Amino acid sequence: MKKLKGNLLYGQSGGPTSVINSSAYGIITEAQKHQDIIDDVLIMRHGIQGALNEDFYYASKQDPDQIELLKHTPGSAFGSVRYKMPELNEDETDYIRLLYIFQKYNIRYFLYNGGNDSMDTAHKIAEYMRRVDYDVRVIGVPKTIDNDLPHIDHTPGFGSAAKYIANTIMEINADMYAYPKGKVTIVEIMGRHAGWLTAASHIASTEGYGPDLIYLPEVPFSVDKFKQDVRRIYGEKQQCLIAVSEGLLNEEGLLVSSASALKDAFGHVQLGGVSSKLAAIVNNEMRISSRRIELGSIQRAAAHIQSLTDVEEAIEVGRQAVKLATAGKSDLMVTMTREDQKEYKIKYGAHPLNEIANIEKTIPVSMINESGNGLNDEFLEYVMPLIQGINTPVYKNGTQTFTKLKR
Amino acid sequence: MKKLKGNLLYGQSGGPTSVINSSAYGIITEAQKHQDIIDDVLIMRHGIQGALNEDFYYASKQDPDQIELLKHTPGSAFGSVRYKMPELNEDETDYIRLLYIFQKYNIRYFLYNGGNDSMDTAHKIAEYMRRVDYDVRVIGVPKTIDNDLPHIDHTPGFGSAAKYIANTIMEINADMYAYPKGKVTIVEIMGRHAGWLTAASHIASTEGYGPDLIYLPEVPFSVDKFKQDVRRIYGEKQQCLIAVSEGLLNEEGLLVSSASALKDAFGHVQLGGVSSKLAAIVNNEMRISSRRIELGSIQRAAAHIQSLTDVEEAIEVGRQAVKLATAGKSDLMVTMTREDQKEYKIKYGAHPLNEIANIEKTIPVSMINESGNGLNDEFLEYVMPLIQGINTPVYKNGTQTFTKLKR
Repeated sequence: MKKLKGNLLYGQSGGPTSVINSSAYGIITEAQKHQDIIDDVLIMRHGIQGALNEDFYYASKQDPDQIELLKHTPGSAFGSVRYKMPELNEDETDYIRLLYIFQKYNIRYFLYNGGNDSMDTAHKIAEYMRRVDYDVRVIGVPKTIDNDLPHIDHTPGFGSAAKYIANTIMEINADMYAYPKGKVTIVEIMGRHAGWLTAASHIASTEGYGPDLIYLPEVPFSVDKFKQDVRRIYGEKQQCLIAVSEGLLNEEGLLVSSASALKDAFGHVQLGGVSSKLAAIVNNEMRISSRRIELGSIQRAAAHIQSLTDVEEAIEVGRQAVKLATAGKSDLMVTMTREDQKEYKIKYGAHPLNEIANIEKTIPVSMINESGNGLNDEFLEYVMPLIQGINTPVYKNGTQTFTKLKR
Repeated sequence: MKKLKGNLLYGQSGGPTSVINSSAYGIITEAQKHQDIIDDVLIMRHGIQGALNEDFYYASKQDPDQIELLKHTPGSAFGSVRYKMPELNEDETDYIRLLYIFQKYNIRYFLYNGGNDSMDTAHKIAEYMRRVDYDVRVIGVPKTIDNDLPHIDHTPGFGSAAKYIANTIMEINADMYAYPKGKVTIVEIMGRHAGWLTAASHIASTEGYGPDLIYLPEVPFSVDKFKQDVRRIYGEKQQCLIAVSEGLLNEEGLLVSSASALKDAFGHVQLGGVSSKLAAIVNNEMRISSRRIELGSIQRAAAHIQSLTDVEEAIEVGRQAVKLATAGKSDLMVTMTREDQKEYKIKYGAHPLNEIANIEKTIPVSMINESGNGLNDEFLEYVMPLIQGINTPVYKNGTQTFTKLKR
């Protein structure tokens, strides 16, 4: 195999997770083991936009202590972006610019860290560079709290968000039962069109603090059934805790939330608002006092309660990406397969990027209970290994310490 | 001094904190050291309502391991209540019933754990029992995340909520800066008419992740000034993080949130909604995209990130209450005084209940910055000792373990 010597270009894209920077840590530290062929790791500021603008961080300029702190820093430490690369057949402007940048900085390894859309971007770049015969290895590094990528057991970022959600639901439940007579509490959870994150609230049930009802985008939502469910639970307990997905769909397949006319750069409808709608139904149509809690961006940023399993896997997918690239592989995403169902063990592999992009993996029917308003033990068997262990935060004076990077 | 032999009756009242059960732990374990005079600790289910209904937990029936877990359990483990005892001169029905219960169960020590309103309840009971010549020692155990009790340096519950808020604001901030161009993010924080909890967001500034603007009920709110502040920050950073108190007042002293006609049992106006109002101003009048985050009940229930200092103090105010009562003291609330400003050290004492009830302590002007939209170093000197240390949660399989009590 021809030894390809040059720089590695890395970027973060899409919504942050609490462990995407752990993948950056894995990439940077693994790249240092390949100094015979990787000169330096350049990191695009705000993903592909940083490449187009020649706006980079250099791994070689960073303090090693700060590289270590990437494992405890939420958000996208190097900046993220939601920028849709044009179709190759429509507009080559950005690709021509990228080729110029790749040549100028001798970029021979390109690693892009994100979800479906980012894999789409990575694949298009791999495709263009192949067409123009520029030798570069392109590897996608999976990341999304939504857990909706295909051909992978689960995505880095999901486990920590699931752990935060499970523990927070337990706390909300304990708080709720302080009073003898209560409200209908509706917790709105992220996840776009997949219910994985909302389903994670069911983990709290293993301790007896789970939601009474869970509504997922995978199950068509009926207002009548909802009112029936709530009436039954509230009649029995005088309390009702509900977890609901932001992307809940009604029986016609329309978003239960008021669909906003605004779309993001990828043409996705902006979600949110479903808990307000359900709370209004409970208040106005059922005459029960209700309150809603939107976990918001905290669920993807709660670095103070990361799953150690998730952090370690996020680091490893980063390492694997470097290993694949330096071994001459390209146009692939790092994958994780569960080797054994009994004893949790992950085998790392790779899958073609073009079969990942723009496909959303949702919860299989077999994991959802018969009434369609909760999860079953098959889901728990799947999810429990992912939230194990604590990545103890670096506290100093009562607050966490996040990385400080040099430009 | 006459030795008063009998049972100790304890109850939790008002909004839960993440450490109120630590005070219960302190009371139960201290009472066990006074077995010569305290036969058992009876705990009212749902506060004073449990007493009126003869609905009790017995400390002697609980598993010692579960008593230990009180230190890690949020909510009010024995149930709380918002029940206003009538004025003594207006209606004695409840008091006559209580006297009957006290006699029936030989209650000689009465400890009530709560905020302003609970201290009012405790004082009225002390007053009534004095009038009818029933010998019982009544001690108030302070608790409120709002930190608004007078004659005490700070209240148990505040430190843990402050720690949660500071760390969560850091995470929201890190997440927000992922994108090159952002929104105005408005985080609504609890605290009723006092700004202490909202002010705690300023702790995040010590790490460089604080809010850009903080609006407190202590500073009359001007929409014009607000728009000016936001325009300046957003113009400079293309991002703006705002922390705002639910109880924000305008220049006429009216609630900025849409004041609801509903009032709670104590005649308090139901708060909430201020972040929606400010977000609407930013969206509609300033044409900047905004989003709001309401931390909701999680801020008082986040047992997974408790301040160890707060937990230890909550335990100690419980112990002190038992010591005061067994020493013959009554009609007092346990207090904490900061002995030394340099080296943080708390001296425990007591203060007459009637001087605590219904008085709200707000943030002194000297702790607020000149522009009235932030805090200064005097506030940090006050607050930092309160969030120190971690009360490591009891994780099992990735979720916390809360206490299981026997009825």
